[in-house]
Amino acid sequence: MSQPLQKIVIVGAGFGGLSAAKALSKAPVEITLIDRQNHHLFQPLLYQVATAALTPAEIAVPIRHILRHQKNVHVVMDSVDAVDTSVKCVTTKDGQRFDYDVLILATGARHSYFGKDHWAQHAPGLKTLGDAFDLRERILSAFEQAENLASSDLAAAKAHQCFVVVGAGPTGVEMAGAIAELAHSLARDFRKIDPKHNRILLIEGGPDVLPSLAKKLSKRARRDLESLGVEVLTDTMVRDIHADRVETSDSTIASHTAVWAAGVQASPAAKWLGLDPGRSGHVPVDDTLRPQGHDDVYVIGDTALALQNDKPLPGIAPVAKQMGQYVGRRLAQIAVGHTPKGSFRYKDAGALATIGRNRAVADIFGLKVTGFIGWLLWGAAHVYFLIGFKNRLFVVLNWLWSYITWQRGVRLIMHKP
Amino acid sequence: MSQPLQKIVIVGAGFGGLSAAKALSKAPVEITLIDRQNHHLFQPLLYQVATAALTPAEIAVPIRHILRHQKNVHVVMDSVDAVDTSVKCVTTKDGQRFDYDVLILATGARHSYFGKDHWAQHAPGLKTLGDAFDLRERILSAFEQAENLASSDLAAAKAHQCFVVVGAGPTGVEMAGAIAELAHSLARDFRKIDPKHNRILLIEGGPDVLPSLAKKLSKRARRDLESLGVEVLTDTMVRDIHADRVETSDSTIASHTAVWAAGVQASPAAKWLGLDPGRSGHVPVDDTLRPQGHDDVYVIGDTALALQNDKPLPGIAPVAKQMGQYVGRRLAQIAVGHTPKGSFRYKDAGALATIGRNRAVADIFGLKVTGFIGWLLWGAAHVYFLIGFKNRLFVVLNWLWSYITWQRGVRLIMHKP
Repeated sequence: MSQPLQKIVIVGAGFGGLSAAKALSKAPVEITLIDRQNHHLFQPLLYQVATAALTPAEIAVPIRHILRHQKNVHVVMDSVDAVDTSVKCVTTKDGQRFDYDVLILATGARHSYFGKDHWAQHAPGLKTLGDAFDLRERILSAFEQAENLASSDLAAAKAHQCFVVVGAGPTGVEMAGAIAELAHSLARDFRKIDPKHNRILLIEGGPDVLPSLAKKLSKRARRDLESLGVEVLTDTMVRDIHADRVETSDSTIASHTAVWAAGVQASPAAKWLGLDPGRSGHVPVDDTLRPQGHDDVYVIGDTALALQNDKPLPGIAPVAKQMGQYVGRRLAQIAVGHTPKGSFRYKDAGALATIGRNRAVADIFGLKVTGFIGWLLWGAAHVYFLIGFKNRLFVVLNWLWSYITWQRGVRLIMHKP
Repeated sequence: MSQPLQKIVIVGAGFGGLSAAKALSKAPVEITLIDRQNHHLFQPLLYQVATAALTPAEIAVPIRHILRHQKNVHVVMDSVDAVDTSVKCVTTKDGQRFDYDVLILATGARHSYFGKDHWAQHAPGLKTLGDAFDLRERILSAFEQAENLASSDLAAAKAHQCFVVVGAGPTGVEMAGAIAELAHSLARDFRKIDPKHNRILLIEGGPDVLPSLAKKLSKRARRDLESLGVEVLTDTMVRDIHADRVETSDSTIASHTAVWAAGVQASPAAKWLGLDPGRSGHVPVDDTLRPQGHDDVYVIGDTALALQNDKPLPGIAPVAKQMGQYVGRRLAQIAVGHTPKGSFRYKDAGALATIGRNRAVADIFGLKVTGFIGWLLWGAAHVYFLIGFKNRLFVVLNWLWSYITWQRGVRLIMHKP
């Protein structure tokens, strides 16, 4: 009688979970991949959905479609409620129960408002398609409100034309640039709005935008943003956020649309494992990506706190992807009776961020590139990493169309019931 | 001193309102076009959004973008609350007030549940992008539920794999065919669902599907539907609709997803005008499309009850479009001091409906076409009438892609907050 196959349960089908599943494609194992959503999301382009440049379907693909040919994986759309490590099983909201021999937690992160959770309703963040959809409705509705108020109440109209982005990491920088371009592209479609009253502010607590990049690139990004009309306020703390204003350490800004790009918090994986979550909820892992005392549990991606050269690895897509590949390959070796060797090491290929049309900063394999070339590089890298030929084709066509016409193609307010 | 320009207020930017505005593009008038939505919607393809074949942006364009070069029109996104015909003014939910010399009401229709309004929550209809989005989430979630239940509760899984479409007019027929094809295309992505348990039922109170078409085409459409696996139940009345079942005159069908395509009711235009609304809420109009006693009000499209050869004109896009053009041209003549002549006559070019891949029925200028040629004709006609080069391009590419791959490209469940 042959031995039963090893059961691997993966929670989360982001970059980490999906890479792990794919790295196990030829392994004699039985994989269950559980996600709350039915789709894998290409988060690096999510801000383009929020700013009406791309449609949701262009950056999201059903998980079960991606893995349709991989027969050793069963995709489940459900929310994990709890993990019982003593009997090695995962239970879900819909009452399903999945036993595991090995568990991989790749559940990602959500926004953190540093204890001010009531800010969430006024300054939504950007993690899911739902978030992007919501933000798109807010941004487009703000311009409609401004148009309706422009003749009767100029101050109110101006407040609707003012957008505040909190946090100047890659998401905040790309978001601020994209809103500035969107506002510009809308100008000729409106009759009463005065485009001179459009204001886009980027607020950052530290001294630099894109603090993780080299100083030179950070400075260039700031110049690029300012040339697009974005007001960059560094060394500025947000004190409070209301429906109609943002209060900073220096002033009060009348604005109805704020976007949160300032902090993240890991998902409840630490709680599931009965571990003490740190301030940001991450699960500390060793150099094989396992938390202490849990030999059959791996924690990867934004959920993990992994150190390399005594510094925590950042919560970005390439880290999650490499972690998933590492764990998947390791388990594939074990499944065929080999002893896995080697610990995880992140290979940093660099980082890039686009500010807008013809503008980006990139630090690739130590090479620092800006402007038009940086922008082409940024576009090529993002299209390359997108999943699916159709998505690549449609994203490129959409970008070409926008580039030629200076228009944003997805300016829909849907009033979803 | 020159005379002030005539003020024309148009409520609704569907096919009727938009055509009226465009027909006035060169007239010396001041147009205000008010709509609750920011976009004009190509409703004939809405069922393809609901069945994950097209994205919302491909069939909807911002109204102000369509009219960006027409300087005599001001687009307002707001809901009309009331019309005061005595002082000739329209007031909106946001408290705006628009005086008019001439008012055009083109506010369309909503579903009618024949007094059973509680059916709406279980059997949504299909009129707006929000409706289509909601229906797409329901249909895709039903398959996910079926997958989760397939091992533990087969009867429950089957109920989730059962879809009931009520009403066999063009929308109902196209919807039923599209769900059947979607179900088929999903089969290989799921592991536990048994595709043999997929059921799609089309329920119609009358004896025929597509009753407005020639008997020959109606019979062919029925055959085409049945060859796709759709169970067509004619002469069948719906008695009640619950979350988990549909009760007909003959039986009870266990189903969690019902779609309403059976009846429509005109918008509250009759109430605004202080007229007695008929059973379906339409406003009776004369052969210049004006209701009795209101010389400066035109009512067009699905909102109007207009007779031709003693029969009411149907609530379809070509009627609304021709009505809008008629009123627009008439007002353009008046604006330059001419006496308008002639009454409205609808020129019927025919009708078409698609059942699925390579299958459609068409009655164009008296010519009856079915099968592959009918299907090409249907596709060409719909692409031709779409607004915007980009939308045409993207719809054609999406269709080509689906045709080649047998896949539906927009299978997203977004859980919009």
